[in-house]
Amino acid sequence: MTDTVTPTASGAAAAATPHLDDVAAAARTAFGATVASTAAERARWLTAAADALDAAGPELVPLADGETHLGATRLTGELARTTAQLRLFAAAIVEGSYLEATIDHPDATTIPPRPDLRRMLRPLGPVAVFGASNFPFAFSVAGGDTASALAAGCPVIVKGHPAHPRLSRRTAEIVAGALAAAGAPDGIFGHVEGHETGIALVRHPEIRAVGFTGSLHGGRALFDLAVSRPDPIPFYGELSAVNPVLITAAALDARADELASGLAASFTLGAGQFCTNPGVVFVPEGSGFAARVAAAVPSDAAVPMLTDGIASAFADGLGALAARPDVSVVAGDPVQQRGTGAPVVLSTTTTAVREEPSALLTECFGPSTLVVEYSDVDDALDAIRAVGGSLTATVHAQPGEELGDILAVLTEIAGRVLFAGWPTGVAVSWAQQHGGPWPATTSIHTSVGVTAMRRFLRPVAYQDAPDAALPAELRESNPLGIPRRVDGVLELP
Amino acid sequence: MTDTVTPTASGAAAAATPHLDDVAAAARTAFGATVASTAAERARWLTAAADALDAAGPELVPLADGETHLGATRLTGELARTTAQLRLFAAAIVEGSYLEATIDHPDATTIPPRPDLRRMLRPLGPVAVFGASNFPFAFSVAGGDTASALAAGCPVIVKGHPAHPRLSRRTAEIVAGALAAAGAPDGIFGHVEGHETGIALVRHPEIRAVGFTGSLHGGRALFDLAVSRPDPIPFYGELSAVNPVLITAAALDARADELASGLAASFTLGAGQFCTNPGVVFVPEGSGFAARVAAAVPSDAAVPMLTDGIASAFADGLGALAARPDVSVVAGDPVQQRGTGAPVVLSTTTTAVREEPSALLTECFGPSTLVVEYSDVDDALDAIRAVGGSLTATVHAQPGEELGDILAVLTEIAGRVLFAGWPTGVAVSWAQQHGGPWPATTSIHTSVGVTAMRRFLRPVAYQDAPDAALPAELRESNPLGIPRRVDGVLELP
Repeated sequence: MTDTVTPTASGAAAAATPHLDDVAAAARTAFGATVASTAAERARWLTAAADALDAAGPELVPLADGETHLGATRLTGELARTTAQLRLFAAAIVEGSYLEATIDHPDATTIPPRPDLRRMLRPLGPVAVFGASNFPFAFSVAGGDTASALAAGCPVIVKGHPAHPRLSRRTAEIVAGALAAAGAPDGIFGHVEGHETGIALVRHPEIRAVGFTGSLHGGRALFDLAVSRPDPIPFYGELSAVNPVLITAAALDARADELASGLAASFTLGAGQFCTNPGVVFVPEGSGFAARVAAAVPSDAAVPMLTDGIASAFADGLGALAARPDVSVVAGDPVQQRGTGAPVVLSTTTTAVREEPSALLTECFGPSTLVVEYSDVDDALDAIRAVGGSLTATVHAQPGEELGDILAVLTEIAGRVLFAGWPTGVAVSWAQQHGGPWPATTSIHTSVGVTAMRRFLRPVAYQDAPDAALPAELRESNPLGIPRRVDGVLELP
Repeated sequence: MTDTVTPTASGAAAAATPHLDDVAAAARTAFGATVASTAAERARWLTAAADALDAAGPELVPLADGETHLGATRLTGELARTTAQLRLFAAAIVEGSYLEATIDHPDATTIPPRPDLRRMLRPLGPVAVFGASNFPFAFSVAGGDTASALAAGCPVIVKGHPAHPRLSRRTAEIVAGALAAAGAPDGIFGHVEGHETGIALVRHPEIRAVGFTGSLHGGRALFDLAVSRPDPIPFYGELSAVNPVLITAAALDARADELASGLAASFTLGAGQFCTNPGVVFVPEGSGFAARVAAAVPSDAAVPMLTDGIASAFADGLGALAARPDVSVVAGDPVQQRGTGAPVVLSTTTTAVREEPSALLTECFGPSTLVVEYSDVDDALDAIRAVGGSLTATVHAQPGEELGDILAVLTEIAGRVLFAGWPTGVAVSWAQQHGGPWPATTSIHTSVGVTAMRRFLRPVAYQDAPDAALPAELRESNPLGIPRRVDGVLELP
């Protein structure tokens, strides 16, 4: 596609296509204002964007459905999640503890003696955001990366996803218009398009960090660009996960049908196009669980996939798996027809997984799951270690059952460990962790939930500053009433 | 030098040289124990290491002086700082807030509905530490990177600096012995040597993060290795800084002699071999400040530098600067003799800085400072922007003087902003920030102070976990009595 920059001033959709340098320069200028803005001001900006997006729902949901086939019900819910997310960040920044405000008064008795030191987190600068195709609202133009960067005080330049260009442009117009109407500085939000423009964005001197949700291949390429700059910048990528599930013999004995229908509903949800899709499920050998899952697949689960590229990659991945002598096709046709995401259940053994983990455990983005039969729990854990990093890991056991090493192994490979339910569905809250060891994500921070802001902040300490020169958050009287650590002791207002 | 691995079992200094793979495997095995250790246990380990190092001071200080020429007074103080640092981390982990323990109870009214989610930080895994030559205790074998990684629950493998090999080996023996005697798991602490071994360490599959303090050149090379691994790992490097200082006309009018002697003492301290050395100082034009600084240089300031390599690089850097037509030599001889760090004062103008910032503002590691004359504050700030990222930035103004944009510009380029004193001297405390925009450091975290632990931790969320399966820090009853955020509200025990 051509590389263009979409003007975001409301109503100017068909007008000129400014150069990326201009958008970046505007973001840089805006940063001078956002870095000095109060949390209350930014909370108003975020809330205004949320209100405008909610009001535009009747226009945006059909636009999204036309480009993604995800359906009005799912998209209406996703838009509500997106605006709730903006409002959650608005509330969190006013509470103020995200700043990690810390005051150490002078102390001549420490080794070495310490001066007056006051530390808080400050915004990094303009941030580039690459949205995902599978969440056209919640992980796209006005999604979690954008919300967390704006909340932190960083201007944002979104690189629109080519799978939903009209929705991206319209969302960008609405967000930019709402931010401007709420008094946010010009240039705080920009929207650009095109593959080459995306590359130039990651390399642009004004960009201080990148948020990305997408494929391992594309994410790694952009990561490599970010870290090979003359001045490397943080690249926060959420890339790939197979989200292993371990079912104990006791749990399967007690509730095989419930587990089979739960798994079938989870791996087929939204044509399986979730980064938290349960892609590999470990069950005791000889349990017949794969056949139960196959029988539980909803009859209406085959739906068009997001893009031709995703559909082809899904069919290619399934085809490679199904062609292996150590993999059985339990249900569905790995040769997918006409871009339809038709559910497929495969099965194999832990021996096969351990022998060639990368071939068997690569993410197949779509409605498939691989049931792996294990001889005992240690055998299953050995295979799970071979899975590598994942966003989630799930154990289904019976109440009171001894978990042994299960918890240690699942904690080691994943950022979120579930003891009930299925990993699809990512709540947006303070305690959420969406990220895990490589290749799940590229960083030690989450991309979902309040603490996602930490990615776009850096600490600054002020030494022996006059009280009047300090940011309000660090003045002796604590005028904003935020939580602070004073001389090592955490204090609530 | 040859690439060897120093055995760290006490008394085995001259014995076998195990392979890096064995040291890494031992660290991996140890991680299984450290990840499950309590903060109280790790606090005992850290305290035991501190006690053993303090007790060995009469042996270690002469050993360090023989290899570094830094003098017994400075080295005695640095050892005390090092052991105080270990004890500060011990206290901080018992307090518990570093874990960011967060509990969200289930809530069906949120969008999307949320399950029970409980999040805390967990150790990353084995960490590689590359110490610096200029702080043979505080930023070396048992320095801040090692202390913060062990406190976080990560085994450490130190790559000893070739500038003080005997001290490194002996320190490693003492630390390993003290940890073992205190009940820490075998393999929690290893020590290796050699350039090629260091490269292999950064590439080793068991290593999950790297802490580094050293040169821009060497740090960038290792950073590139860490991020080009099949599984990239975080590289926390502290590389290079010129630490700009801005003196206002009013401050110079009021206290020129005090400022000149303060600067002279700071830039010559320890032969100028500090990463926080004030390397470039902006003063009003025609003030004659450079001559005052030259006159204030202590007569005994010329001392041997740490290594021949540092001495040569210092002489080369000074020679290149002094050869420029736009730079004047105000005091000292840029042609350094016999590896002695003899103080040098240079001067130039903001015009020269703006025209070729990289040539004028490269760190000259040693006792030199470049006085830059400005026409007005805006002129100085334009030049300071050209400095790029730095560990510190300092302003000397008069009480009540309007700072205008000074504070915004200094905050943007540095991690620590000083309003009095000089940047040499880095207190170890909760509010410290030692790190700044590239090339000062490679990350959004500090390498000094309590929050340096955050570099070696990653969040894990537990969803719908039975209370008994949770780490104690997340159980409903809060048995350890640590600060936690519950349903969005920060709570103190």
